[in-house]
Amino acid sequence: MQIIITGGQGFLGQRLAKKLLNERRDLEELVLIDVIKPIAPNNDPRVRCIEMDLRDSTGLQALITEKTTALYHLAAIVSSHAEQDPDLGYEINFLATRNLLEACRQNNPKVRFIFSSSLAVFGGELPEIIQDSTAVTPQSTYGTQKAMCELLINDYTRKGFVDGLALRLPTICIRPGKPNKAASSFVSSIMREPLHGESAICPVAQDLNLWLSSPDTVINNFVHALTLPSLNPRDWHVINLPGFTISVKQMLADLAQVKGEAILKHIQFNFDESINNIVASWPATINCKTALDVGFTADKNFVDVIQQFIQCDM
Amino acid sequence: MQIIITGGQGFLGQRLAKKLLNERRDLEELVLIDVIKPIAPNNDPRVRCIEMDLRDSTGLQALITEKTTALYHLAAIVSSHAEQDPDLGYEINFLATRNLLEACRQNNPKVRFIFSSSLAVFGGELPEIIQDSTAVTPQSTYGTQKAMCELLINDYTRKGFVDGLALRLPTICIRPGKPNKAASSFVSSIMREPLHGESAICPVAQDLNLWLSSPDTVINNFVHALTLPSLNPRDWHVINLPGFTISVKQMLADLAQVKGEAILKHIQFNFDESINNIVASWPATINCKTALDVGFTADKNFVDVIQQFIQCDM
Repeated sequence: MQIIITGGQGFLGQRLAKKLLNERRDLEELVLIDVIKPIAPNNDPRVRCIEMDLRDSTGLQALITEKTTALYHLAAIVSSHAEQDPDLGYEINFLATRNLLEACRQNNPKVRFIFSSSLAVFGGELPEIIQDSTAVTPQSTYGTQKAMCELLINDYTRKGFVDGLALRLPTICIRPGKPNKAASSFVSSIMREPLHGESAICPVAQDLNLWLSSPDTVINNFVHALTLPSLNPRDWHVINLPGFTISVKQMLADLAQVKGEAILKHIQFNFDESINNIVASWPATINCKTALDVGFTADKNFVDVIQQFIQCDM
Repeated sequence: MQIIITGGQGFLGQRLAKKLLNERRDLEELVLIDVIKPIAPNNDPRVRCIEMDLRDSTGLQALITEKTTALYHLAAIVSSHAEQDPDLGYEINFLATRNLLEACRQNNPKVRFIFSSSLAVFGGELPEIIQDSTAVTPQSTYGTQKAMCELLINDYTRKGFVDGLALRLPTICIRPGKPNKAASSFVSSIMREPLHGESAICPVAQDLNLWLSSPDTVINNFVHALTLPSLNPRDWHVINLPGFTISVKQMLADLAQVKGEAILKHIQFNFDESINNIVASWPATINCKTALDVGFTADKNFVDVIQQFIQCDM
C-alpha cells in the first residue's frame, strides 16, 4: 500500500503520517509532499519526502501511479491568506486539486481521494442546525474554493475517474504551536497559551458557540476514511465530520475545571468586531448523523480534549 | 450602453438580442459572440457580430472594456454533450466563465454579469419543493460546472470584481426548431411536432411533473435582470427563476384543449427508462418567491404558452 499526503509537513499532515505509520502494517510507502521539504516521522524508512509546489502540474502527474492506494489532499492556502490573495488560493486550493484528480483519472482511477474540506463552505444566513441538505453559501474565497472542489470530486467520482470523499472539518481545537492570522486562531490560543502560563486575547463574545473537533479525533476520522467501502458513485461524496458545539464561556469553565480558576487570569477580553463577525458567520451545530452512521467518531467532551492536549502536546 | 451576449447565435441569444434592440433605446452597441459567426437581427447597425471560440482567453480579455455595461453569458456545452465530453464542458462551461469574470475584474468591475445557470444544479434525493436554501447536488457534469460557476460568480461579486447574478433557468418549453439529443428534448417536441402536423415520441411516464418556463418569459426575465439594482455584495447572487409545475398528462390535455383531441394522435408513447430517470431526477417545483419579490415574472398557464408559440414561432 502506498499513501500520499499533500501538506505533509503541516500540523495535520505530520500527525496523520505518524498515525498511519503506527497503525497500518500494510503501508509500504508513505509519500509526504509539501512546499518545504517534509520531515519523515521517526526517520521511518517507509517515508519518501518530496519538496514540491502544487502548481507544478507535471510533478503532480508523475506522483500518482498504479501503486497508489490513497491520497490525502490536505494542502491549502488557509482562509485569511486566500482572502488576501484569491489568485494564489485559486491555483493551490482549486487548480491543484483538479490537477491531482486528473492525475488519478489518467494514472489510477481506483485511488481513494480524501479531501480536506471545511465548515467554511457554509456562511451567511444559516439554519440553527446545518443538515446534509443545507445549501453551501460561502462568504470567503477559501470556502468558495473548497466548495468548488467538493463539486468536482463528486463529479469525478460519479464518472468513475477517482474514488473520492470530501470531509468537512470542524474548527480544530486545541492546535499546538503558535497563534496565526486565521480568524479562528484565538479558539486554540485561549486554551493553549494559558496552559503554557502565557497570556491570550479573546476577541469574541463569550456566548458565541463554536463547532469544534480535537486534532486526535480528526486524525482518527481521516484514518477511518481509508477503510470505508466505496460509496455508490451516485451518492453525494461529501461528509460533515462529527464535532461538538461549545460556547466560549463553557470552554473557559472547562479549562478552569481542569487547572483551577487562577488560569483564567491569563485571558484578556478585547472584543474585535471583525473577528467576532467572521467566526459568528460559521455554523455552530452540524447534524453529523451520516458520518456517525458510517463509523466516524466525535470527541466525548471538551474536558477530555484539554486533557488530551496536556498529555500529548505539551 | 454596450451589451455583450455569448452564445449570441443560439436560440435564446438571438431572441434576447431582438428584445434588447427593440426595448433598450439607450443601447448603443450589442456584441454577439458565438463559435459560428452570429447574424445581426434585422441587420441592425448597432449589432457587432464576432466569431470566437470561448477557449480563446486573449480574445475574451479584449472583449470587456470600460464601455461594457452588461454581459449575458449564455454560451454552454449542453447537458448531454458535457456528459459525453467533460473536458470540453470544463473548458467552455467553467474555464471560459472564469476567464470572462477575470476580464471584467481587470477591465471593468462594474459590468453586470448575467449568467445562465440551470435547474440541473439540483439532482439526487430532493425535497418536494426546492427552496433557496436547498443544497445543490448535481448528478451531471453540466450541472456540476454550472454550480461551480455560481460559486465563482458569488465570490467575485462579494469581492467587488464584478456585479454578478446567476439565474437558474427552468426547462424551456416550447422551443422552436428541431429535436436535439438533450434528455429534455421531448418536452418541446411533444407540443411542437403535433402543432406542425408531425409525429413525436413521448419517452416518459405521463404523471411525470416538470418545471417549465416559456421562452418569452425567460427572455423577459433576462431583460429584467439588467434593470435590477445591485444586490448587497454579501447577498447570495443566485436566483431560481420563476417557472410552473405541470405534468406531461396536463400538457397533452392543454394541447387538446387548444387544437382538439385529434392532435394527440401524432404522439407515440414509447417509454425510455434512461430518459425518464434523468428527467425525473430534476426538480419539479421550485419556490421562486425571491425572484417574484424582485420583479421576475412567471407564465400564467400552459395554454397561454401554447398560444404564444402558435402566434410567434410557427
